Amino acid sequence: MPTFIDKLKAKWNEGKFVCVGLDADYEKIPPFLKQKTSGDKFPEASAFYEFNKSIIDSTHDLVCAFKINSAFYEAKIETWESMQHTFRYLQTAYPDIPIILDAKRADIGNTSERYALGTLADPQFDSLDDNTGPDAVTLAPYMGEDSVGPFIKVAADEGKGVFILVRTSNPGAAAIQDALLQDGTPVYQHVGKLVAQWGAKLVGTRGYSSVGAVVGATNPDQLAALRVLLPQTIFLVPGYGAQGGSAADVAKAFKPDRTGAIINSSRGIIYAHKSPAYAGMPWERAVEAATLAAKKEIAAALQ
Amino acid sequence: MPTFIDKLKAKWNEGKFVCVGLDADYEKIPPFLKQKTSGDKFPEASAFYEFNKSIIDSTHDLVCAFKINSAFYEAKIETWESMQHTFRYLQTAYPDIPIILDAKRADIGNTSERYALGTLADPQFDSLDDNTGPDAVTLAPYMGEDSVGPFIKVAADEGKGVFILVRTSNPGAAAIQDALLQDGTPVYQHVGKLVAQWGAKLVGTRGYSSVGAVVGATNPDQLAALRVLLPQTIFLVPGYGAQGGSAADVAKAFKPDRTGAIINSSRGIIYAHKSPAYAGMPWERAVEAATLAAKKEIAAALQ
Repeated sequence: MPTFIDKLKAKWNEGKFVCVGLDADYEKIPPFLKQKTSGDKFPEASAFYEFNKSIIDSTHDLVCAFKINSAFYEAKIETWESMQHTFRYLQTAYPDIPIILDAKRADIGNTSERYALGTLADPQFDSLDDNTGPDAVTLAPYMGEDSVGPFIKVAADEGKGVFILVRTSNPGAAAIQDALLQDGTPVYQHVGKLVAQWGAKLVGTRGYSSVGAVVGATNPDQLAALRVLLPQTIFLVPGYGAQGGSAADVAKAFKPDRTGAIINSSRGIIYAHKSPAYAGMPWERAVEAATLAAKKEIAAALQ
Repeated sequence: MPTFIDKLKAKWNEGKFVCVGLDADYEKIPPFLKQKTSGDKFPEASAFYEFNKSIIDSTHDLVCAFKINSAFYEAKIETWESMQHTFRYLQTAYPDIPIILDAKRADIGNTSERYALGTLADPQFDSLDDNTGPDAVTLAPYMGEDSVGPFIKVAADEGKGVFILVRTSNPGAAAIQDALLQDGTPVYQHVGKLVAQWGAKLVGTRGYSSVGAVVGATNPDQLAALRVLLPQTIFLVPGYGAQGGSAADVAKAFKPDRTGAIINSSRGIIYAHKSPAYAGMPWERAVEAATLAAKKEIAAALQ
């Protein structure tokens, strides 16, 4: 079985750097999909699955990964099941595309063990027998090494990965992440160095650790500083598109050989039909066009 | 409807300071409960619910709150439902006892809005129509004010609360939380001050904000420092018992009027029958005895 990093490297080699974020929001889902599923037992859950499936089918040949945002699914049992069905669809139809579960978990050791199995699931911990879970999961760093350790262990055992928050893309991040330590290091760089330490033993033949970092596109100078500081860390980069990060900004997340980063776009792609740029286009075509535009724009910025 | 703080204050007034943590672990659940549920459609989920119900019935008159650790339930759909059934049982049988959902969530704004509704659930976002969700939820601070803001808003609107990680009880916490900032403040105190700021507008007539802090018992000096620094912040204190914190340690979490803290114990109580101190006792009696012992020990330390 190829590992998470094997799959990702293959996509980078094909010039694919965009990750499409599947943040299903019932209020924003196109009306025709809601109509199609209105007679189902759980219309919202069915609509989420159909929505994801259409996005996946329209963009699978353009992306390096898909990211599923747990928050949009876990509020209800039925929609949580539709998340698992989405995993299963992806793994069956497009097994070569890595899936990242954006869950931002972490807790003390014995609790993180549970979360690790629930997110990077072993089949025995999963309710869908043939679902082996996502390829990677996002984690929060505040509680330290023993809180992320159980996830890293499962990732190492199963050829999967984790992405630990280092510098996030939201405005409020600065209050803690940019605070300066006594030696002048900002907290986010201190956390970045720890993330590299925690993943140092898991650097493979491809030169990257399976312990990655979340680094936002909205602070390109910090992104550039971290790229130099953490040469063996893969960056999952939110903040491109709807949150304001440009292609030139996200280009700073890559190494000179055009590897090392996954550029996520969620709202800017999956609700592209609401943008003036794609007015009048059927929803699936708008999704495809927005993904293609992002793919080209980032590839051009990497020339 | 009494608010979360109303309920808690009533329990403190009765000399109740212990919160029992419902960390259901199938491997540790007493065999007789597993036998009882072995013929059910989902034996593990049924056993979790029976386990929780027995603990609640055995300890409800001794505690100030119950804490449900999401990690132990969310790995499977059926066990996740048993968590919701536990909420419902508590709210029906013992509506005066606050319930804390230990989920350690937080994300960027639009995602935190989803998590806030999924955890501190509005009925409309809930799959059990008569379940109005827990009274409070635990959150991670690293992403800053806009990441916890949506939870605080729901808490304010619904008379509920949040507890944000400030100084956690695990050994690995020190690497980030004890790092010193340029003015000599450790990161955990910086975060503590931010938590107080974020909750300043929500201080009620009882003198406490509905924005609380998680502060571990394993570092009593830090706990004492935070108690002085954050006079209007309720502390949820893990680390007592199984993790090593003593009654004298956790006493530092309280103000002189014996209010301001919730002392959690999970493994030390719910698996007390495995302790030599309660050998030979039926499981429910061991649970009750361990809770009573904790209640008395903490009350004595507060004299």
